[in-house]
Amino acid sequence: MPLFFNRVALLGVGLIGASIAKVMKAKGLCGSITGYGRSTDNLERAAAEGIIDSFNILADVACRDADLIVLAAPPAVFSSLVKDARQSFKEGAIVTDVGSIKGKTVFEIESLMPANAHYVGAHPIAGSEKSGIADSSAHLFHGAKCLLTPTQTTDKAALEKVSALWAAAGAVVEIMDPFRHDEVYAAVSHLPHILAYELVNIVADADPDFLRYAGKGFKDTTRIAMSSPELWRDISILNSDELVRLIHLFRKRLDDMAYYLRDKNSQQIEAEFSKARTLRSDLGSDACQQGEE
Amino acid sequence: MPLFFNRVALLGVGLIGASIAKVMKAKGLCGSITGYGRSTDNLERAAAEGIIDSFNILADVACRDADLIVLAAPPAVFSSLVKDARQSFKEGAIVTDVGSIKGKTVFEIESLMPANAHYVGAHPIAGSEKSGIADSSAHLFHGAKCLLTPTQTTDKAALEKVSALWAAAGAVVEIMDPFRHDEVYAAVSHLPHILAYELVNIVADADPDFLRYAGKGFKDTTRIAMSSPELWRDISILNSDELVRLIHLFRKRLDDMAYYLRDKNSQQIEAEFSKARTLRSDLGSDACQQGEE
Repeated sequence: MPLFFNRVALLGVGLIGASIAKVMKAKGLCGSITGYGRSTDNLERAAAEGIIDSFNILADVACRDADLIVLAAPPAVFSSLVKDARQSFKEGAIVTDVGSIKGKTVFEIESLMPANAHYVGAHPIAGSEKSGIADSSAHLFHGAKCLLTPTQTTDKAALEKVSALWAAAGAVVEIMDPFRHDEVYAAVSHLPHILAYELVNIVADADPDFLRYAGKGFKDTTRIAMSSPELWRDISILNSDELVRLIHLFRKRLDDMAYYLRDKNSQQIEAEFSKARTLRSDLGSDACQQGEE
Repeated sequence: MPLFFNRVALLGVGLIGASIAKVMKAKGLCGSITGYGRSTDNLERAAAEGIIDSFNILADVACRDADLIVLAAPPAVFSSLVKDARQSFKEGAIVTDVGSIKGKTVFEIESLMPANAHYVGAHPIAGSEKSGIADSSAHLFHGAKCLLTPTQTTDKAALEKVSALWAAAGAVVEIMDPFRHDEVYAAVSHLPHILAYELVNIVADADPDFLRYAGKGFKDTTRIAMSSPELWRDISILNSDELVRLIHLFRKRLDDMAYYLRDKNSQQIEAEFSKARTLRSDLGSDACQQGEE
């Protein structure tokens, strides 16, 4: 049976939500898409551009009769969105999300599901410091990883359908434990965001004029500090346990480095730098391509 | 009188050295260029490509009769290079450098100058994680800043000539106190390098498998961790006083952030992120252009 969702509810029409909507339209995977969001202007624009077919400013109305419900709002509101809308989830509806946070959030959403609606957690590793439908594209997920985070109670058929959806979007689907997901992304995404934001701030606080001397290296290193403060505030708080643990470890490394520097310990400093260079070089240098949230 | 150096000695033929050599050739600013370096293979290649006209593996021989001597080796060896070569500096020779470190190094080189040879410190803000002549270009400095760091004893005529050289390369020349230079670059370049190297290491130490999940954000943030470990070891040690001070301040910020996170202090976290986003956005997002050492 080909993958097809007669009615789709898209709760949140931003970069990621609009992009997966465009995929579904382009690939003929859906009948119609109803959008929901906080900004009527944005919903009107999305409808005018054909990204969604209709919209409603009430989440429960938007979800009525939906076969697929995609949570594409900021992760911090997933639970309240589900609470608001679940009364109208139809029998057998599949609920999925695109959030950068899994862990406890997955189990919380699962616990809120009505009987016979099936939640499958998903995190497509796409997006950038940009947000909003202007940069959305059916190609956004092409070649990107998409992590699915089923639990022991996840419906197998729903998992397969969500997996097929992301595969249709061109993503490389991978299954991961929800808590391991948050450990991984604390390290490769959430901590780097905090370091980037704080690096900009420390330079400006030292002397606002210093930023005039920033070169390409500084700009690359802090590009993600242009990301949405509201989104990253929420992600940071939702993953605060992991982040606090990592910040503590990072501090320890900085202490060690300060010690090596005071000690002019060339050998140890070079060893640190060489190790990092080898590891980083193995990742390749696609500094001008897509793929991160 | 037009800018012209009959004989140029280029001590170090890497990315920056080869690029300024190409500028001088392209603009007809020199008679001949003699290269000096540690690797005969590299010098032979540079000569074969016409970047230099001849070379010598003895720095003092390379500097004989030179009107302009460019220190383009790693900054850590500037002093010993000058010590090795100064006996053959001719009367009125101009000595300049392209190092990322100024401060004490400038005064040390100045103190080593023979009478009637004139040193002018320079730091073109160009280059990248790459090094070597393969990526060298006469256009490397176009639109980039070049900081000149004269002292009270710097010869005015020599300063003007070095300034004219960098202007001819298309750089935007700016004068800066040598110690302020090191404060500025500790903040916008040296600390970011240490953070990038240590971010790669902390992720790999948490679990080497985590790096597989790195997206574009992580890659951009750590691109400079592909920079030469030897060069950055030297720069870090040469600027260790400033770096240790900044690392201490950065640690303090991380402590504050960990506190906000534990406290789920949304307001303070968003304030930090918003401040950084505004400052960073003002720098623009030329993530795919040139300009940093």
